[in-house]
Amino acid sequence: MTSLSRSEPIGYSLPLSPSGKSSMVSEPPWHFSGNMLWIDYRVDPAAAVGFLPERLSPDVDAGAAAAVFSEWQWCSADGGELGDPVRCQFSEFLVLLGCRYGERAMARCPYAWVDSAVSLARGWIQGMPKQFGAIRMTRQIPIGVAGAGTRPGGRFAASLAVDDRRLVDAAVTLRELVDEPPALSRLPLVHSRVSPPWTAGDAASPAELVTSRVEGVAFSPVWSGSARLRFHADAMHDLDPDLARLVPRETGPGYYFSYAETLVGGESLA
Amino acid sequence: MTSLSRSEPIGYSLPLSPSGKSSMVSEPPWHFSGNMLWIDYRVDPAAAVGFLPERLSPDVDAGAAAAVFSEWQWCSADGGELGDPVRCQFSEFLVLLGCRYGERAMARCPYAWVDSAVSLARGWIQGMPKQFGAIRMTRQIPIGVAGAGTRPGGRFAASLAVDDRRLVDAAVTLRELVDEPPALSRLPLVHSRVSPPWTAGDAASPAELVTSRVEGVAFSPVWSGSARLRFHADAMHDLDPDLARLVPRETGPGYYFSYAETLVGGESLA
Amino acid sequence: MTSLSRSEPIGYSLPLSPSGKSSMVSEPPWHFSGNMLWIDYRVDPAAAVGFLPERLSPDVDAGAAAAVFSEWQWCSADGGELGDPVRCQFSEFLVLLGCRYGERAMARCPYAWVDSAVSLARGWIQGMPKQFGAIRMTRQIPIGVAGAGTRPGGRFAASLAVDDRRLVDAAVTLRELVDEPPALSRLPLVHSRVSPPWTAGDAASPAELVTSRVEGVAFSPVWSGSARLRFHADAMHDLDPDLARLVPRETGPGYYFSYAETLVGGESLA
Amino acid sequence: MTSLSRSEPIGYSLPLSPSGKSSMVSEPPWHFSGNMLWIDYRVDPAAAVGFLPERLSPDVDAGAAAAVFSEWQWCSADGGELGDPVRCQFSEFLVLLGCRYGERAMARCPYAWVDSAVSLARGWIQGMPKQFGAIRMTRQIPIGVAGAGTRPGGRFAASLAVDDRRLVDAAVTLRELVDEPPALSRLPLVHSRVSPPWTAGDAASPAELVTSRVEGVAFSPVWSGSARLRFHADAMHDLDPDLARLVPRETGPGYYFSYAETLVGGESLA
Repeated sequence: MTSLSRSEPIGYSLPLSPSGKSSMVSEPPWHFSGNMLWIDYRVDPAAAVGFLPERLSPDVDAGAAAAVFSEWQWCSADGGELGDPVRCQFSEFLVLLGCRYGERAMARCPYAWVDSAVSLARGWIQGMPKQFGAIRMTRQIPIGVAGAGTRPGGRFAASLAVDDRRLVDAAVTLRELVDEPPALSRLPLVHSRVSPPWTAGDAASPAELVTSRVEGVAFSPVWSGSARLRFHADAMHDLDPDLARLVPRETGPGYYFSYAETLVGGESLA
Repeated sequence: MTSLSRSEPIGYSLPLSPSGKSSMVSEPPWHFSGNMLWIDYRVDPAAAVGFLPERLSPDVDAGAAAAVFSEWQWCSADGGELGDPVRCQFSEFLVLLGCRYGERAMARCPYAWVDSAVSLARGWIQGMPKQFGAIRMTRQIPIGVAGAGTRPGGRFAASLAVDDRRLVDAAVTLRELVDEPPALSRLPLVHSRVSPPWTAGDAASPAELVTSRVEGVAFSPVWSGSARLRFHADAMHDLDPDLARLVPRETGPGYYFSYAETLVGGESLA
Repeated sequence: MTSLSRSEPIGYSLPLSPSGKSSMVSEPPWHFSGNMLWIDYRVDPAAAVGFLPERLSPDVDAGAAAAVFSEWQWCSADGGELGDPVRCQFSEFLVLLGCRYGERAMARCPYAWVDSAVSLARGWIQGMPKQFGAIRMTRQIPIGVAGAGTRPGGRFAASLAVDDRRLVDAAVTLRELVDEPPALSRLPLVHSRVSPPWTAGDAASPAELVTSRVEGVAFSPVWSGSARLRFHADAMHDLDPDLARLVPRETGPGYYFSYAETLVGGESLA
Repeated sequence: MTSLSRSEPIGYSLPLSPSGKSSMVSEPPWHFSGNMLWIDYRVDPAAAVGFLPERLSPDVDAGAAAAVFSEWQWCSADGGELGDPVRCQFSEFLVLLGCRYGERAMARCPYAWVDSAVSLARGWIQGMPKQFGAIRMTRQIPIGVAGAGTRPGGRFAASLAVDDRRLVDAAVTLRELVDEPPALSRLPLVHSRVSPPWTAGDAASPAELVTSRVEGVAFSPVWSGSARLRFHADAMHDLDPDLARLVPRETGPGYYFSYAETLVGGESLA
């Protein structure tokens, strides 16, 4: 039991362990494939700007926003998680706001919820403000009265609940294939990495603006249609009054598509 | 408040209420659409027969069994549940055994688990022995490293956990489209309706053999491939030693397909 | 594999199996011990009567109601479940209404929710209209700022959510020990056993009025105090408009106490 | 919409927002009150040392460990969470190892699981390696066959499941009040704060050894008794082989007590 034979416990994240395999978050790259129910909407531009760090400007199309539900599978480089769906699946809801970093059009995510703690922790490493919630979303089942398909008239619904309160629900009825995915989905996300202060030395570190380095981006064909989107403002006021500022002023159109990407790391906007 | 103005509270099931709309289980018909991960396997024929009521005989192919994972959407006649995925979705795992009722080939379901109480109660009405469990299953996502598609090499995995214990896991790697769905999927299910005795008058009622009246059966194209199936015998012994009798002796092939049906009522096998 | 050596699969409830041990609901007696957060309240008497079968009359104190949150442990005769908390614990919320059966004062439960499927199925056997929900309730922890104790000023809060919607929340601040538990807690419950029709022969069976045979009833000392009770009427209208008829017109007092009983069977009110 | 009127979105943690109230983790101090089921046990000393950073030495009593289940309530300085149990409650399981920092006896937590994402994120801020799991634990209910009380013969059981796999179960039968809480519970915890590298500039930051600044520590009377503790080694090997190194070589005694503390910040062991 001398220290000579000891190695430091290691890991990309906590928990540290002798082999490093206990790390809750695996080392990037991380591969993601998801089905997305996307609703474009518009917020009060003055509300949106309150969520933008000073180095970001409102989009030229001030008030452009999106409410995005998705069901994901993910895996590490070796794909090991794919054999165990409880580990490779999670669902997500996020709000996006159009913005600019200098001349560059980007998307800002003020709020996100997932139903997996691994996904949540991975989000915080990137500066993505994931919280925990219950996300439900219609699944593609190609046949039958209770099915849902990517065809004209196909209906997809979704909801978000947080702390046992319904916060958002939405539905999209598909109409047609469109040439392009929604505008905000084609922009890089810009996040703020934050280190909550804990010890005396931590006090001063400011948020760091970052974007993600992404490879292998792929879109399936994109369906578009009419959308319904409801933010339950009373429950939002109860849980988080700031969130309630981002209620829809206008809704639509909606989209359904699949999306894939590989996240390889972050890049500081210095 | 005289009884003249009163109506009896009503409902297809509990809870009874003035309008009948509180009924947890809606009146049939019930429409179902699901994605199925199906693994044919073989059990000890002597074990299988122990789960057959005396009026049923073993199948000529004694020991034929299936382990079936599925993700369902369902709705009542008016389709109202489809707009709220938390109400219209559930997942299921069931074991099937081949059997005969007289000359008629049928399938017997000794065990089933679902993750929705409405589905569970609906099962008991039909004589389907649903219990509560956590079912996970790979989702179709057509693109990306972490996706899964219906194509040669597509991999689908699934698991069942009950009372915080992993009981079953499985995986299928797709190889090819086949002409027919698996044999047991084409047979009617035969269930035992049971009324657990509660008051003095209840004691004697025997189980009633029933099958279901089904309409609108539809299958998608059926993919077949190689399968892996593991029953965690230790955990089964801990929770339910009878269940452990149905561990696989042989496994495969596996299948992936979608299935739809409308359940309109039951029929007593008198 | 002759039928000579076969025994019928058995069980108190589904699933039936060779030994009968697969039965999801164990045979009574069932022992229950629980911590209860109880809020007396008053409903519109005309609304209450709509939930009473014709053979029951409103209580002389028309409109008397209670909203009851509880955290239970239960076990079968052999106590086996107690070693595995995932199996012996469940939480419950129920609404009670005062009523009479002839001269006999009783309590009627129009709605109940639990977070365990075994508890739900056991409720239906008794005629108790349990549905599935998420119930949360402050726990007794005797020390610290975040604790809660049975002492003057002790605060206990609770909530019910169903299908990802908050339906009820409540809180009680304890003031003093009282001599008696709340009035409705001392009355027998009267339930309606219902057999949802499935096969042709089922159609006519009416609900059966039953009460439970209970032994070993015990109350801990009973604390009383001021209460807050909120029914979220919008979410109720959305999920179940009948339920929304039972919103509070007046609230209080509230109570905190422990309760135990053994349920041995039912008795038909013929 | 000029930047003149803008303020930077703020928050102790993500998400940042105009008022700062969206922060998922509230600013310390954090008050905790919990009921603890504590089992002393012994691990292979060579395995334990593999989890100690080089600046820590094994305890003189090499191999001393504890398996700790707890049900907590917590709140921020203003106590606001206590009125909403879904926000103020969480359960936890952790493993502790005895160690030394120079001459100072401390406790090291190589693994911890909680069932709340807020608690998990708060743990990572402190360097506590919390992951997500399902923790169950017998509750104090003072009366009835299914109750559990702090008295000789009182039985408390608990379990941990992670990713739908049972990993640990345990039980303690109380015998007597003891003068002191278990040895490791009286020692400060020493954690490693880790910043998983994301951008190019992150690569080099090493783990920071920290301990917590704690106030208002309180113990209830402490019950001791005989203990049973099982680590499910197969499931551990499947999920995390490093964890399986910490299986028990010897078990007992066990303890049941309540504990409270206020966490005010961290202190670097520089």
